[in-house]
Amino acid sequence: MKRILIVGIGAGDPDHLTLQAVKAIAAADVFFILDKGEAGHDLIRLRQDLVDAHARAPYRLVKARDPDRDRTSAAYATAVQDWRSRRAGVYERLIRDELGDDETGAFLVWGDPSLYDSTPAVLEEVLDRGAVRFVYDVVPGISSVSALAARHRIGLTRIARPLHITTGRRLALEVPEADDIVVMLDARCAFATLPDAAEFEIYWGAYLGTPDEILVAGAVTEVAGQIRDVRAAARERKGWIMDTYLLRRVSR
Amino acid sequence: MKRILIVGIGAGDPDHLTLQAVKAIAAADVFFILDKGEAGHDLIRLRQDLVDAHARAPYRLVKARDPDRDRTSAAYATAVQDWRSRRAGVYERLIRDELGDDETGAFLVWGDPSLYDSTPAVLEEVLDRGAVRFVYDVVPGISSVSALAARHRIGLTRIARPLHITTGRRLALEVPEADDIVVMLDARCAFATLPDAAEFEIYWGAYLGTPDEILVAGAVTEVAGQIRDVRAAARERKGWIMDTYLLRRVSR
Repeated sequence: MKRILIVGIGAGDPDHLTLQAVKAIAAADVFFILDKGEAGHDLIRLRQDLVDAHARAPYRLVKARDPDRDRTSAAYATAVQDWRSRRAGVYERLIRDELGDDETGAFLVWGDPSLYDSTPAVLEEVLDRGAVRFVYDVVPGISSVSALAARHRIGLTRIARPLHITTGRRLALEVPEADDIVVMLDARCAFATLPDAAEFEIYWGAYLGTPDEILVAGAVTEVAGQIRDVRAAARERKGWIMDTYLLRRVSR
Repeated sequence: MKRILIVGIGAGDPDHLTLQAVKAIAAADVFFILDKGEAGHDLIRLRQDLVDAHARAPYRLVKARDPDRDRTSAAYATAVQDWRSRRAGVYERLIRDELGDDETGAFLVWGDPSLYDSTPAVLEEVLDRGAVRFVYDVVPGISSVSALAARHRIGLTRIARPLHITTGRRLALEVPEADDIVVMLDARCAFATLPDAAEFEIYWGAYLGTPDEILVAGAVTEVAGQIRDVRAAARERKGWIMDTYLLRRVSR
C-alpha cells in the first residue's frame, strides 16, 4: 500500500522539527514539493535544506506547480474550495504516477497542519475520488502561533479566559468578543484600522524562528504604524512575508 | 547571569520533542521538577525519561512540592492568581538556592507553554519581586491541541472560519458562537450537557501520543455517553487523565 505522511515542519527555525518529524523525513522515499511561484523561493529552499539534513538516501524530490487561486473573488470560501479541488487533482496525479506501491511519500507543511492548512482535507478529497488508494498520517508541528508566543515569552491564554484564532479578513469585518485574539493570514494589516484600538496591545512577529525574524510589541495605538512600515519594508526587501500576531484587550 | 529555559516537551509522545528542546535539555545544568502529588507520578516519570534520554551529565534534578490550589473556591480566577503567587515564592527559592550564578536551569512543561500554562507568568512575577536576577527563554512545544488534530487527521480550522479555544468551565457557562471550539481542562465533561448537542460533532482524545492514547469521534448525541464512560474508566485505572477535544458545528 502507498503511504503518505503530512509532516508539520515548524514555523521557520530548522530546530522546530520534532523527533517524530525527523523520523518521518527519514522514512520517506519521495518528497512532494509544491511550487507557489517566485514569491515562495526562500520557502522552497528552507524545505529543501530540511530534506538534505534529515532524509535517507536514495530519495526523490518531485516538484509540481500549485494551482493558482482566484484572489480577486468576493466569494472567498468558494474560491478556496475550488482551489482545493484543483489541488486534489494535482495531488492525485503525484500519488498515482510518482509514488511506488510500497513507497512512502511526504508533504512538508509549514507550521502545524491543523491551522489554516488544507493538506489533510485535500488528501481526503483524493481518497473520496477513489482513483488512487493510500493510507496517510499527520505529524504535528510547531505552529507560528506557538512560535510567536515563545519569542515574546507570553502565554496566549490568560487565567480562565478563552483564545480566539482568526484571519485578517475576518478581523476586518468584525472584532470577536474574546479578549485574546490571534490573527493569521492578514495581508492587509487589519490591526491598523481596529475599532477600539486603544483597548488592545499587540504582539506581532514576522519570519518567526528565522534569521530575518522581526518582533514588535506595544499598545496598538502606539506601534501600529511602526509595524505597518516595518512589514512593508521587509516584504519589499525579501519578496514575501509570513507574519502573525496576538491582540490582547487590556482596558477591561 | 543565571539562565532559565522554559521547555515545551509536547503532549506525551517522547518524539514530540523538537530539536530545539533536545538542545535546551542538553544545555541545562539543573532540572526543576514540581511535584503535584500522587496523581502526577506517571507524568513525573515521563519527564524524567526525557531528561535521561537527552540531558548532558553531570546534571542535577531538583524536586519541589507545587503549592496546593484551592479547588473549592467559587472565585476561580482569584484562586488561580493566589496559587500563582505562592508558586512564584517556590520558584524564587529554587532559582536563588539551587541554581549557580552561571548555570542554566530548565522547567519542562507539558504541551506548549503558551496554552493554559503559567510558567512564563510566574517567572515574570519572580523577576518583579526583585529578589533574584536571571534571564529566561521559552521553547515552544507540540500542544495537546495540535496532537489531537494530527491523531484525528483533521484541520482545526475550516476555510475562512475562526477557531475558539476555551476551558470546560467556560463551556459549561456558555457555548461560544464559533463553529469550531477546542475545549481544554474539562474535568466535568461539559460536552455531555451541551445545549444544541445535535448541531455538533466531537473529536476527543486522551493521553495523546502515549501508549494509553484513546480517540473517539462522532456526533455528540451518539458518542457523549461512550466518551464519559471510557474517560471515567481510564481515570480510575490510571489515577489521572489528560484529555482535550474539538467541537465542530455541522448543521449550519
